[in-house]
Amino acid sequence: MQAIVINQFGAPDVFEVCDMPAPHVTPGHVVIEVAATSVNPVDCKIRQGKLAALAADFPAVLHGDVSGIVRAVGEGVDEFTIGDEVYACAGGVKGSGGALSELMLADAKLVARKPKSLGIQEAAALPLASITAWEALIERANVSKGQKVLIHGATGGVSHIGIQLAKWAGATVYASCSSESKAHIAKQLGADYCIFYKDMEVDDYVSEFTDNRGFDVIFDTVGGDNIAKCFQAAALNGTVVSVSSRSKQDLSPMHAKGLTLHVVFMLIPLLHNIGRERHGIILRQVADLVDESKLSPLIDEHRFAVSEVSSAHKYVESGAAIGKVIVTT
Amino acid sequence: MQAIVINQFGAPDVFEVCDMPAPHVTPGHVVIEVAATSVNPVDCKIRQGKLAALAADFPAVLHGDVSGIVRAVGEGVDEFTIGDEVYACAGGVKGSGGALSELMLADAKLVARKPKSLGIQEAAALPLASITAWEALIERANVSKGQKVLIHGATGGVSHIGIQLAKWAGATVYASCSSESKAHIAKQLGADYCIFYKDMEVDDYVSEFTDNRGFDVIFDTVGGDNIAKCFQAAALNGTVVSVSSRSKQDLSPMHAKGLTLHVVFMLIPLLHNIGRERHGIILRQVADLVDESKLSPLIDEHRFAVSEVSSAHKYVESGAAIGKVIVTT
Repeated sequence: MQAIVINQFGAPDVFEVCDMPAPHVTPGHVVIEVAATSVNPVDCKIRQGKLAALAADFPAVLHGDVSGIVRAVGEGVDEFTIGDEVYACAGGVKGSGGALSELMLADAKLVARKPKSLGIQEAAALPLASITAWEALIERANVSKGQKVLIHGATGGVSHIGIQLAKWAGATVYASCSSESKAHIAKQLGADYCIFYKDMEVDDYVSEFTDNRGFDVIFDTVGGDNIAKCFQAAALNGTVVSVSSRSKQDLSPMHAKGLTLHVVFMLIPLLHNIGRERHGIILRQVADLVDESKLSPLIDEHRFAVSEVSSAHKYVESGAAIGKVIVTT
Repeated sequence: MQAIVINQFGAPDVFEVCDMPAPHVTPGHVVIEVAATSVNPVDCKIRQGKLAALAADFPAVLHGDVSGIVRAVGEGVDEFTIGDEVYACAGGVKGSGGALSELMLADAKLVARKPKSLGIQEAAALPLASITAWEALIERANVSKGQKVLIHGATGGVSHIGIQLAKWAGATVYASCSSESKAHIAKQLGADYCIFYKDMEVDDYVSEFTDNRGFDVIFDTVGGDNIAKCFQAAALNGTVVSVSSRSKQDLSPMHAKGLTLHVVFMLIPLLHNIGRERHGIILRQVADLVDESKLSPLIDEHRFAVSEVSSAHKYVESGAAIGKVIVTT
């Protein structure tokens, strides 16, 4: 079968077409004929070599997000049959296949039927982003009715799902936006208020939107020094959830306010083979929410064929994408 | 009435005897005739001026922990009557009185009847330490049956309560100890295993006691760079709870393991007048546990009269104390 691989880390043009043996199904697994994948920031970082420890051996097939059709079902898998339309974040890292190929072997525990109301290509936008947002806001921060939840990076791949999940959980949702057009999208996704963070100091929006009390939950999808701003904007005994926490930070504000910091790294089940069944369960719940019109992926208007994956990575790295960028096979 | 005050920040000998007007009871409050108080590290730091922002105006009456007898009951307080033997952490900071005086005005929401099975002086050892450990392990970390819980600083004021609460919650408890004699005490308190942290690297005890899996919950009562060791010893998706988190730390290990860091600052209800009723509720639960022989304070053999409070602070600052140091009036 044909796959797109990297044989070294590097710029977006490092991808190469490669003939690889088709995967044989193994116990507990399914083979998915890939309909689409989507680009996540972690895919770019792996390609760049910034997360070399996570990368599969060369030639490495990247991309975890996959949607497609089950073509083979391994021993012990009762939930799926050949022909099922499924989605998952099932690879792209050490120890598993990747979605930039015609066929992908996937641990059935990570897989769920795609939302019925969503096209098979569009379903590829959801897995990594929705599992991350679900783990962050529903499982870890336990967002509940009446809480004030600030979501940083409103139209990002993870944050646009975060807005919808926090709203579904009953919170009042504040989305930080860099432009009027993004604020418009954030409102359509369910944000109650938009904060133009480039024009406001943290103390100013804490004053204006929370009467100086601070936000109950803050979702940081930006990372780096944004965590310090999250600490600053949090309420007493508040919660910050970050999906990108690799920096050095002064923890004093956490002490003064008695804060909680959750760091979510959704690839742990994939990398360490623990708790994978939770990902399948989350994706089933996400599919239900999509079919109930409570959640929908924000998909960038630019789509790419798998042969254009270099362009897709370039586009994502330019920062111009709105929501998720889909790559179809 | 007589009180011990500070008129400036400084060394332990900065305390002075002072005549002050007796407090009048106010709505929602009780006046407690102080039987005893105990020394907490925060009292020393306030005295030193390291936490000047928390200090009451001079002349400042320090110490939050109090046990004693209710001598006046304010309007709206139904739970207490004159003569009740009570305990609380009810002051010693800005906006409230302190326990280094004959009488202390206390918000009734912070107060509970002392454990019946414990002497009135001994009860003063518990409030700040037990509320802190309860908030950390029961409320925030939600310690549960079968978890591996590592408690740093086994015979410290907070950690010796932590061992007992984690054991009561059903965890397997690992206590880090600096000596055989402290390990002996930790075992008596309920620790299943003692880790001689001066003789072992973190990776070594993670290997020996968790088969390299890491601890589910780690309770840091030490602070500073010990947090980095906690991150190192935590399991995937594990939880670190710290009661002292004022340093700058690399958060990368939190990312790789998907950790949660809770920082507990038990003075928040006292300083900000929010959620005070929770402290009264915790102290009622603690009293029940003491009376059921599931929890007991570890009290240093050296006790001090209130006139010797300077010596009590010196002793605590020397690091020689085992458990809590009581100061009686």
